Amino acid sequence: MQAFNDLADFSNEEIAALLELANRLDRHPEPTALRGKVLSLLFLSPSLRTLASFQAAMTRLGGGSFVISPDMSIHGLESRPGIVMDGAAAEHIREAVPVIASYGDAIGIRAFAERKNLATDLAETEFNALTDLIDTPYINMESAMNHPCQNLADWKTLDDFDVPANGGKFVLSWAYHPRALPLAVPSSTLYMAARRGMDVTVLRPEGFALPDSIMDKARTAAAANGGSVTESEDREEAMQGAQIIYAKSWSSTSAYGDRIAEQEMRKGLEHWCVDEDWFASAATDCRFMHCLPVRRGVVVSEAILDGPRSIVIHEARNRMLAQMAVLHQMLGTGQ
Amino acid sequence: MQAFNDLADFSNEEIAALLELANRLDRHPEPTALRGKVLSLLFLSPSLRTLASFQAAMTRLGGGSFVISPDMSIHGLESRPGIVMDGAAAEHIREAVPVIASYGDAIGIRAFAERKNLATDLAETEFNALTDLIDTPYINMESAMNHPCQNLADWKTLDDFDVPANGGKFVLSWAYHPRALPLAVPSSTLYMAARRGMDVTVLRPEGFALPDSIMDKARTAAAANGGSVTESEDREEAMQGAQIIYAKSWSSTSAYGDRIAEQEMRKGLEHWCVDEDWFASAATDCRFMHCLPVRRGVVVSEAILDGPRSIVIHEARNRMLAQMAVLHQMLGTGQ
Amino acid sequence: MQAFNDLADFSNEEIAALLELANRLDRHPEPTALRGKVLSLLFLSPSLRTLASFQAAMTRLGGGSFVISPDMSIHGLESRPGIVMDGAAAEHIREAVPVIASYGDAIGIRAFAERKNLATDLAETEFNALTDLIDTPYINMESAMNHPCQNLADWKTLDDFDVPANGGKFVLSWAYHPRALPLAVPSSTLYMAARRGMDVTVLRPEGFALPDSIMDKARTAAAANGGSVTESEDREEAMQGAQIIYAKSWSSTSAYGDRIAEQEMRKGLEHWCVDEDWFASAATDCRFMHCLPVRRGVVVSEAILDGPRSIVIHEARNRMLAQMAVLHQMLGTGQ
Repeated sequence: MQAFNDLADFSNEEIAALLELANRLDRHPEPTALRGKVLSLLFLSPSLRTLASFQAAMTRLGGGSFVISPDMSIHGLESRPGIVMDGAAAEHIREAVPVIASYGDAIGIRAFAERKNLATDLAETEFNALTDLIDTPYINMESAMNHPCQNLADWKTLDDFDVPANGGKFVLSWAYHPRALPLAVPSSTLYMAARRGMDVTVLRPEGFALPDSIMDKARTAAAANGGSVTESEDREEAMQGAQIIYAKSWSSTSAYGDRIAEQEMRKGLEHWCVDEDWFASAATDCRFMHCLPVRRGVVVSEAILDGPRSIVIHEARNRMLAQMAVLHQMLGTGQ
Repeated sequence: MQAFNDLADFSNEEIAALLELANRLDRHPEPTALRGKVLSLLFLSPSLRTLASFQAAMTRLGGGSFVISPDMSIHGLESRPGIVMDGAAAEHIREAVPVIASYGDAIGIRAFAERKNLATDLAETEFNALTDLIDTPYINMESAMNHPCQNLADWKTLDDFDVPANGGKFVLSWAYHPRALPLAVPSSTLYMAARRGMDVTVLRPEGFALPDSIMDKARTAAAANGGSVTESEDREEAMQGAQIIYAKSWSSTSAYGDRIAEQEMRKGLEHWCVDEDWFASAATDCRFMHCLPVRRGVVVSEAILDGPRSIVIHEARNRMLAQMAVLHQMLGTGQ
Repeated sequence: MQAFNDLADFSNEEIAALLELANRLDRHPEPTALRGKVLSLLFLSPSLRTLASFQAAMTRLGGGSFVISPDMSIHGLESRPGIVMDGAAAEHIREAVPVIASYGDAIGIRAFAERKNLATDLAETEFNALTDLIDTPYINMESAMNHPCQNLADWKTLDDFDVPANGGKFVLSWAYHPRALPLAVPSSTLYMAARRGMDVTVLRPEGFALPDSIMDKARTAAAANGGSVTESEDREEAMQGAQIIYAKSWSSTSAYGDRIAEQEMRKGLEHWCVDEDWFASAATDCRFMHCLPVRRGVVVSEAILDGPRSIVIHEARNRMLAQMAVLHQMLGTGQ
């Protein structure tokens, strides 16, 4: 595997093989599979879960990793082409990224969206500028529009809780948050659920529709896999028979990159906080998912998070297992 | 072993076995004992020695570790129950701690005392709130009142220097320091020396007596193991025949949490700096111990630290060996 | 090997053996060679490449490492002898360094020059004060005047690109930079190229001559190995027939430690930025080397860095391989 960048790059069979491998590695550890192998971890955006789960994953497979993060005085990493570097930045990504990559057998890269221009972010301009610099196998640890490690972990979580693929009902719901957040998780989660063949509803207030290209990509995947994608602003309608509600806040796409307008649009949306009354029309055992971190009492009530519906800890642990499968396929020697 | 939280949780035989294992692992490395095993290290308070010694310990046993520390923009980790998280904190310990724990086979946790309310700290309210969130085996890397890794290392150090258990005389002395420091090391060191069956004297100025419950716990342990516990403000009396002086500054218990009153009480106590004249009535080869970090010329003179009495470097290295024994018992598979 | 501190401490045969080992480990990984071995990494000055390459090197050989860095609130590490530590610093190097060293089988130490007094820096006063505290094998990860890991990697790079030793022409050129930088890389690179038996020219503006003792050391090494060392302010003359230009900025030695005077001296030297026109009189395939990080458009033009002359990424990767060879010899058990 040369890159793990987007679930859409993999066939159904390949995804099934990764999920099976993740399960196998959980039951039957392989502590020498990646002996002496190194994963470079380059965080241009902050991380806790991704950092910890990748380090743990490499150790469990007998290899190791090193971390380059924004905490490490690399804030000043320059990325503009053609610049005369007489300011604060002492190093350019054109040197830093290939060098860091050269110390590893693969590299994980995280670079959040700039959230200035939607078209630029949809085109993954920044992330692609980084991966264009290397020929090492790489893993997308969250880019402007993708978070494939989260997607694979979530798919596994749905399997683990026996949520049906075809016929299963998945609600991706916008939630309130004091800050405008990236589109990577909602966009790629929508694709994941559609690709799994589920009936997916995107529940969101006006102004927070996901971009057309993202919706189209999901609809195509759903159509090919026996699922469907719809949108709704009506909570009761959307939640009808739902087996999963996956909550996430994201920034407005109609006011993308405009912080003042965005803040204005959020006013009065504080009630988009998932609570037990949301589940009135849902399936009895409807579960709650979230990629974490999550703000209690803002995105979701404490009662839901601490109650039996929440499977967020199980979901977070699956990050490690999903990544172990990816690393095993990318760096293993054919076992 | 499900938890390494307090020496008091272990029988004398269990402590002896850990000490023997620490010695064995020093002489006979077992670089595959914990192959593929992961230790999660969660520091809610800063660390240097503990961080380094645990990482080294896991590597020496063939496993690995990852670190989540306050340097990593997790300062904002929320811990209050029932809160609406619309402020700075983006994550609650109720998610963060179980998730971090789920990536490891065991978790080490450090959370210093809040030092606002003595009863709360004596009850280990904060630390227990963290360990209540997990079912993974855990190691106390210093809580409000405990530092069992330091205690086990110190016990080994006393053994290494042939300091007698029964009949050996151990002075735990308060020392001056510009800041009010936690009670974890003095409280648990007192217990360790008493539990080892030594004759222990707590030497401290007025207002700096250790809490009654801590003294009682130590007296009971001493009585059961052939030792004794006394208190004194008189240096010469306390040091009579001493084989060990273990220096440590700690906050006043009579003005606990009151920084102004505490500062007032410290005035004029600058002479509580261990120096050669303290040893006039001690055993000829009386040794100096300290958990480090230590302020030279404030807690202890340079002459003592650089002279033959000091065994602080040996003591610090024993941290790694003691922790290797704990990890081996907690995560090993019976080899 | 008890120390890797200066290429000058090794015979030609020993250097050749290290280079051969670096090549062998690249072709034939030895993922269990240093099983269970620990490298302590103590950075008193910041790092990215050295940090990452040492961590990767230890993992590739089956061992591990831990990092103590200035990011980790150890800024306050006190180093002055005889001081009463009643200020901000909570720990002295006399405790910190031996303790950190005691957790590893070897320790890597980085401590840049103070750049206050040239004689003090030339004597490696600060670095020696650190290594005097330990008896563990150690690696110089850059001191005031030495950077032997960079030197060994650069030697390997010259070999990799078939640059002749005797008869090969190496230009070490000063370059403009907005800040005054240490002498470690230029001084030790000059020695390396001279020791390799090359014809070396130091190209630099007035006021930026390297110290006499550094020049003498290089001349002696050149004489013993069939090479030569000259100095020039004339770019065209210096570049005549050059096969390598190794660019690096360094501080003025005539105004050493005087920031105002230094700044004044740099004025008008902005044209010391390596560009294609520098190569007019050089060998056709003259290569560009730099230790990185490098400021694009300041030290060297973008065209050179992105063009075929630049071998800086290959050179940076050799850091890892050179260090693997050093670690293998220092910590391996003869396999």
